[in-house]
Amino acid sequence: ELFPWGRLGRIAAGIARDGGGFTYELPPGARSLRRQLARRSVEWGCALSPDDFVVTCGAMEAVQLSLLAVARQGDAVAIESPAYFGSLQLIEALGLKAVEIPSGPRDGMELDALERVLKTRRIAAVLVVTNFSNPLGCLMPDANKERLVAMLAAREVPLIEDDLYGDLYFGPSRPRAAKCFDQRGLVLHCGSFSKTLAPGWRIGWVAAGRFRERVSLLKFAQTIATASLQQLAMAEFLAGGHYERHLRSLRKSVAATMRSLGDCVAAHFPAGTRATRPEGGGVMWVELPAGISALRLHDRALEAGIAIAPGPIFSARQGYENCIRLSSGVVWSPRIEAAVATLGRIAAELPDRRMPAGRRAITGS
Amino acid sequence: ELFPWGRLGRIAAGIARDGGGFTYELPPGARSLRRQLARRSVEWGCALSPDDFVVTCGAMEAVQLSLLAVARQGDAVAIESPAYFGSLQLIEALGLKAVEIPSGPRDGMELDALERVLKTRRIAAVLVVTNFSNPLGCLMPDANKERLVAMLAAREVPLIEDDLYGDLYFGPSRPRAAKCFDQRGLVLHCGSFSKTLAPGWRIGWVAAGRFRERVSLLKFAQTIATASLQQLAMAEFLAGGHYERHLRSLRKSVAATMRSLGDCVAAHFPAGTRATRPEGGGVMWVELPAGISALRLHDRALEAGIAIAPGPIFSARQGYENCIRLSSGVVWSPRIEAAVATLGRIAAELPDRRMPAGRRAITGS
Repeated sequence: ELFPWGRLGRIAAGIARDGGGFTYELPPGARSLRRQLARRSVEWGCALSPDDFVVTCGAMEAVQLSLLAVARQGDAVAIESPAYFGSLQLIEALGLKAVEIPSGPRDGMELDALERVLKTRRIAAVLVVTNFSNPLGCLMPDANKERLVAMLAAREVPLIEDDLYGDLYFGPSRPRAAKCFDQRGLVLHCGSFSKTLAPGWRIGWVAAGRFRERVSLLKFAQTIATASLQQLAMAEFLAGGHYERHLRSLRKSVAATMRSLGDCVAAHFPAGTRATRPEGGGVMWVELPAGISALRLHDRALEAGIAIAPGPIFSARQGYENCIRLSSGVVWSPRIEAAVATLGRIAAELPDRRMPAGRRAITGS
Repeated sequence: ELFPWGRLGRIAAGIARDGGGFTYELPPGARSLRRQLARRSVEWGCALSPDDFVVTCGAMEAVQLSLLAVARQGDAVAIESPAYFGSLQLIEALGLKAVEIPSGPRDGMELDALERVLKTRRIAAVLVVTNFSNPLGCLMPDANKERLVAMLAAREVPLIEDDLYGDLYFGPSRPRAAKCFDQRGLVLHCGSFSKTLAPGWRIGWVAAGRFRERVSLLKFAQTIATASLQQLAMAEFLAGGHYERHLRSLRKSVAATMRSLGDCVAAHFPAGTRATRPEGGGVMWVELPAGISALRLHDRALEAGIAIAPGPIFSARQGYENCIRLSSGVVWSPRIEAAVATLGRIAAELPDRRMPAGRRAITGS
């Protein structure tokens, strides 16, 4: 059993049968859960108190509340490029402008590029997935996190840190959160249990620093509260030490799957393909030889029953036309291996759009 | 047992024990629940299909998503006055402007006043609690609902209908939703089970008409999904017919409590006090004699351990200085009766601010 839903379900069932979880656990959220989050924050290199947290409907609401707390309509928010399409949609939905900062597949957001932007225009906030970003799978080094926090503190710019993948590290220890370098209360640390334990439970948090009161008010104004049963059950599950045990086996499994995925891409994709080898998380960024259209690959793959995310959806600007994001499941299987091989074959067969039309007609399949 | 939490808890426990509710039920939400909502919509005078609904984290998120779907930053949103303070906060948080339309304690929003506003300025949306509004407890008559929908349809202005109290009617039948007069898909009908069954479960909906796709996208961008376990359990509870049975007894109990509350206010509050006698819902609006400060009454009452909501919080403008909102619980008790009597005594003893200082010093307690 890869996810301890049996135990989690029994805990929730016990609480529900005893009449728990039916009344509000108003913002900032159930104290029992915030106490456990504070305990966990030591893992992130922080030592937060239960009072630092606001419980949310997953990390996505945490980011939404953070954006609303620190930015006003029309404001610019700096974000990685490529960036999670959901975050780009959210920024637009809130009437904000995404300023995309180039990000490398190894170290994440390029801080020199960010600094140049900060010098030339007003940025209301920076939104970064610090650990194993989606779609790049990149990990911002500790030194960069420290520099980023300092760079923003000097300008009083809030940092919204989306740390939803941090617990899915493959190395010996969890990467730190940028939050641990925060001396000014300017970092809003967002996270959830959706990627590691129970997506449908919708339990996340934001440790919002000096914006905690405003986030708490906004949470009330927007959704009143997060579902109580899951708050209480998650607190009990964490208090029992079950989460740490689960993470140890989950990480092993995901790491093995990601290795297999990387090997499979290397074996079956056309020459010239470059793929990231992330040290955590569950996504891989694949750059196909220039001229191969990710959107066409996406369409052809769908016809074969294979879902991939084409590069262009990870930017509001043009770009990433020849890139795709692959997601690993938790367990590798012959079926997945066959699908990746098929994907590589389709990619190899796609006409190169850079070729003139006549040439393509001759060489096309 | 006033709330069937035993049965609801057993249903949820069964689902959780069997491993249900751990994965996403993505927007528009669990089909089983949307099918039950469609069935219930007949009660509202509508005949909606499962495809009309988007499941939300309570009615508040439904309203939040509706506002974001139909209005842009800086837009004006017409709302009742007095209005629920949470809605006023939400409108402000989203960068919108509340335009407060006078509303009467019997019929709700004054449609002539709304029409004058519609003629003079652009209104992006109208937000109304059609049935047993908070804080007035007023009920918009069917004829007014029909006129309101037609008036807005003629101008292509969306109506966000917050119907969170509609099931709590004291009369022979449920008041209709304005949504049932909607021929153009311009009415976004919002509701929840928070006031009648399980506030901590955070299950609501919006039947968003022509804005359904956009609401669904925004829901995904903001909170990804509503907690799955409650969606599935609520669907099972509704399918079993338990909700209708529960509502019958709940309405009787709340109606009796509201009658007792009204009688108690009449008996103990100072002469010149006027209180509403709502035909549903759970709140009562009390207008004290002019000159008695609701804010001071609030402070003094808190000292005595009694919580009331002072009138001024129900408007972003000045006003309602001598008004308060009382909330009924479900069951009347000697303890509550004593608290209301104490409140009336405190109100009677408060100095009248209109009197000159000297006079007040003489007559003050």
